[in-house]
Amino acid sequence: MKRKGEVPSIVGRIMDVLIVGSVAYDSVVSPLGHVKDALGGSATYAGLACSFHAKRLSLEQIGLVGVVGEDFADADRTLLANSGLDLQGIETAKGETFRWAGSYHGTMAEAQTHETHLNVFEHFEPKVPESHQNPKITFCANLHPLLQSSVLHQATPNRLSMLDSMNLWIDIARDSLVEVMQKVDLVIINDGEVRMLADDENLIRAARKVIEMIGVQTLVVKRGEHGVIAFHGPDIISLPAYPTENVVDPTGCGDTFAGTIAAHLASGNGELTRDELRHALLSATVSASFTLESFGIQSLHSMTQEMFQNRLEAFSHMLN
Amino acid sequence: MKRKGEVPSIVGRIMDVLIVGSVAYDSVVSPLGHVKDALGGSATYAGLACSFHAKRLSLEQIGLVGVVGEDFADADRTLLANSGLDLQGIETAKGETFRWAGSYHGTMAEAQTHETHLNVFEHFEPKVPESHQNPKITFCANLHPLLQSSVLHQATPNRLSMLDSMNLWIDIARDSLVEVMQKVDLVIINDGEVRMLADDENLIRAARKVIEMIGVQTLVVKRGEHGVIAFHGPDIISLPAYPTENVVDPTGCGDTFAGTIAAHLASGNGELTRDELRHALLSATVSASFTLESFGIQSLHSMTQEMFQNRLEAFSHMLN
Repeated sequence: MKRKGEVPSIVGRIMDVLIVGSVAYDSVVSPLGHVKDALGGSATYAGLACSFHAKRLSLEQIGLVGVVGEDFADADRTLLANSGLDLQGIETAKGETFRWAGSYHGTMAEAQTHETHLNVFEHFEPKVPESHQNPKITFCANLHPLLQSSVLHQATPNRLSMLDSMNLWIDIARDSLVEVMQKVDLVIINDGEVRMLADDENLIRAARKVIEMIGVQTLVVKRGEHGVIAFHGPDIISLPAYPTENVVDPTGCGDTFAGTIAAHLASGNGELTRDELRHALLSATVSASFTLESFGIQSLHSMTQEMFQNRLEAFSHMLN
Repeated sequence: MKRKGEVPSIVGRIMDVLIVGSVAYDSVVSPLGHVKDALGGSATYAGLACSFHAKRLSLEQIGLVGVVGEDFADADRTLLANSGLDLQGIETAKGETFRWAGSYHGTMAEAQTHETHLNVFEHFEPKVPESHQNPKITFCANLHPLLQSSVLHQATPNRLSMLDSMNLWIDIARDSLVEVMQKVDLVIINDGEVRMLADDENLIRAARKVIEMIGVQTLVVKRGEHGVIAFHGPDIISLPAYPTENVVDPTGCGDTFAGTIAAHLASGNGELTRDELRHALLSATVSASFTLESFGIQSLHSMTQEMFQNRLEAFSHMLN
């Protein structure tokens, strides 16, 4: 029963994870088929993965910050909202939603980009809603490093900040990228990007160089079908990928991976421990293995808690 | 005190592992330097790794079968014998010892072969000494599949037979290779070879196809810097590589890996269990990480039990 003068409970709710990233329409060709203008983008995948785990981990709020165009479908907005994502920070701007087109070949390890239309992202200035400015975790999903910086400036996380990126930004905005990397507690990038940043072909040595360059506490190196290696202070955690026969479309796997980590880190407190990180990496690996199995968000969106648990158990058995 | 009529104890000794493979002089160039005519070959690396673990595992005898030329140095023969290897099965033939020259670039994942001189291997017909014909484990290290077949024909293992190979034989002797693979209990090949054999880019699917093609119980897929994935009946075991900053020369890593497995399997009895295989794979991964760190056999040969144990503990910690 509410007493007079009591603050409405909504105000007391915690913003567990604030995610900034892209919301996009992707067109993808892979050896197993193709899809046109499917809902995608780093914030979409990371957000859906994060909200999936939020339910398991009893988190309260996951907020997205990003921009869509006037063409953004109501059905897609509803899908995101129904997944439990707070969309206050998603601005609708004049113009079209960001579009990306790419294809995968051979081992499907890397996408070939055919088209990138920034559209509404070209003039986007992220504005973090006031209620989102003290999240537990701030996660800058893959996006231009200056936009990531702006969000980090606006939102001060209670626990920690993390960031994902891609080779494009190393190519065209290396200085801004290194600068924003220096501001966060945890960086997630892939093995090729680590090698590029360090200019060293040996992954372990390259990772050490990147850690020194950006002074980060935790560096998580995604290795695609080869798993993940994480450097956490003096510790190393190395995990293989979940073995998947049914690789349809790798788009969004890295975002799914990172979004899952963000959810796990929001459910902990104090210093990030090795065990906590390892547990997050296991869940992230399993979650990403679902995203692989369909075009777009389809199989991530239809993953149930039971499907996740079964695969997590099989994966744990495989490792122990 | 020996009694009259007593069989000399030598007869009662068990041949734990019989290894057939190449003994070679290798010339290697890597980004970290070069070496000329260094002792190498699949039987050399596998034998040295096997005999290292033989001491830890209280095995009695490791026998090599192979051929060297008249130019084979006494010092190299002494080194092998002093490592505890039985060299009765090493024939000295007229001509020169097998020579291989290659180089590594970039991530050093694959060797580029510059020269292969079969020399004494061209007309080699392996003869397994009588005392070696009932080993516990027969291990056919990388060699022409017809020579592997001949050894399997001559030596019947008490526990199991295993085989390693390379892409060259898939290219020039595919039918013989598939045939000999069908005869063994455990096959070790690398990821590229699995993809080649199955003509499938998805490693997991490719491995399943190879298992069906050769009807093998256990398939161990080496993935170089990405670790190993093993298929053992219905089970999968997946391990990352030991993270190494100091990669000097990967030559012989696969042989070291396989030789270590052979030693471990010789120390067990009955059906190969998942736990036993996993333990062997852990030791094999750690052993191979030493071979990487020098040209030729140098760092494998100078590895001490303490160095091995320390790294094995660090690796186990990394995984758990």
